[in-house]
Amino acid sequence: MTASGKPKALFFDVFGTLVDWRTSIAREAELILKPLGHSLDWLAFADAWRGEYQPAMDEIRTGRMAFCKLDVLHRRNLERILPRFDVAGLPEDTMRHLNLAWHRLDAWPDSPPGLARLKRKFRIAPVSNGNISLMVALARRNHFPWDAILGSEIAGDFKPKPRVYLAACEALDLPPGECMMVAAHSSDLASAASNGLMTGHIARPNEHGPGKGETGPKQSVDVFGDNLEDLAGKLGA
Amino acid sequence: MTASGKPKALFFDVFGTLVDWRTSIAREAELILKPLGHSLDWLAFADAWRGEYQPAMDEIRTGRMAFCKLDVLHRRNLERILPRFDVAGLPEDTMRHLNLAWHRLDAWPDSPPGLARLKRKFRIAPVSNGNISLMVALARRNHFPWDAILGSEIAGDFKPKPRVYLAACEALDLPPGECMMVAAHSSDLASAASNGLMTGHIARPNEHGPGKGETGPKQSVDVFGDNLEDLAGKLGA
Repeated sequence: MTASGKPKALFFDVFGTLVDWRTSIAREAELILKPLGHSLDWLAFADAWRGEYQPAMDEIRTGRMAFCKLDVLHRRNLERILPRFDVAGLPEDTMRHLNLAWHRLDAWPDSPPGLARLKRKFRIAPVSNGNISLMVALARRNHFPWDAILGSEIAGDFKPKPRVYLAACEALDLPPGECMMVAAHSSDLASAASNGLMTGHIARPNEHGPGKGETGPKQSVDVFGDNLEDLAGKLGA
Repeated sequence: MTASGKPKALFFDVFGTLVDWRTSIAREAELILKPLGHSLDWLAFADAWRGEYQPAMDEIRTGRMAFCKLDVLHRRNLERILPRFDVAGLPEDTMRHLNLAWHRLDAWPDSPPGLARLKRKFRIAPVSNGNISLMVALARRNHFPWDAILGSEIAGDFKPKPRVYLAACEALDLPPGECMMVAAHSSDLASAASNGLMTGHIARPNEHGPGKGETGPKQSVDVFGDNLEDLAGKLGA
């Protein structure tokens, strides 16, 4: 912990940090598309969909496109990747249901108990690029006891743009130095730190497949843990 | 219930509907000012402070002033009424603490159990004129299990402006007809209804003092109850 002491609020990255998007998306795609006769590499499909995530947000970060909910970008990305897997002509209802697979992601096992512990000592909120309705769906599914839903939709932009971190601090009336960004992605934490926030890293070694995730921070952080319960212990919660 | 069926989300007014602002503000003012030697009619002080609430928001509703958090308006209103009670020269720390009395309001006893029941069946969120940090403070104090904090701050305007109701529906990806505004104030419900939302009234007969509050809706609503637990029962929760 830095000399500035403990944070008053913890902000959380969600995709990859709190939920296992990869196996969840693979499962949902299989549940929906297999009965329709499609057979494909479901994990590769999840990776391909996620692969379009950053480029899509770049359109908005750079100002080439007006801000929209991540659900809208997910839909555009879905339409882009389906042909690569030889899937075409899905009914609109199916497309919608498939697109909302991102609302049905499962938490890593330590996320719900870790958040419950941390909420006793800190204000907790997601600061994710996901939209409010998506965050609500994941919270209801996984029992994330958020104090508020912050992040891209209240900021009108996507991480790692400074506005997203700063809007979250402002919403809770806190200076950035009293807020800690928690993520399994060092790049997210680097941006948070450059905007004055404290940083906490948790390892998600299997985010992108077995052994394909960050096992530790790539730069100096204020605190790091093997998982959210470990981090909670280190923060005295 | 209307033919359109049950709502998917319930939006709640907070001041007066879920929390007893009048006796809470009177208590907080006394706690802070009495030790400093002030003696005044604490309930009259609460009424006077609340009396400046609508006029202050009107400055923003009409576009004469840019949107700001309700905390900022509360502070301006506090400075306006203190001289009426012959209170002057309070230190800045005391002014701040007194202003945040609105973050320390107590719930009506049925509000926490009523919300807990309703959350099992519906998405629930405050759609209040209070800012996010204020809503978070009240929720943590009173165990309001919100799915998200919606309302004035995400809309950039104050009720009864249409934008506040509609921004809440949009945040949850729901058409207004699948959302229900719940309030102890018929005027709030009239505005919600005119924007296409369903409406639920709960009686708060003592909001402005014994016998000085709405005991029932002044116009047709979709459902009404004696309190939040009664309303939960009528909504099948």
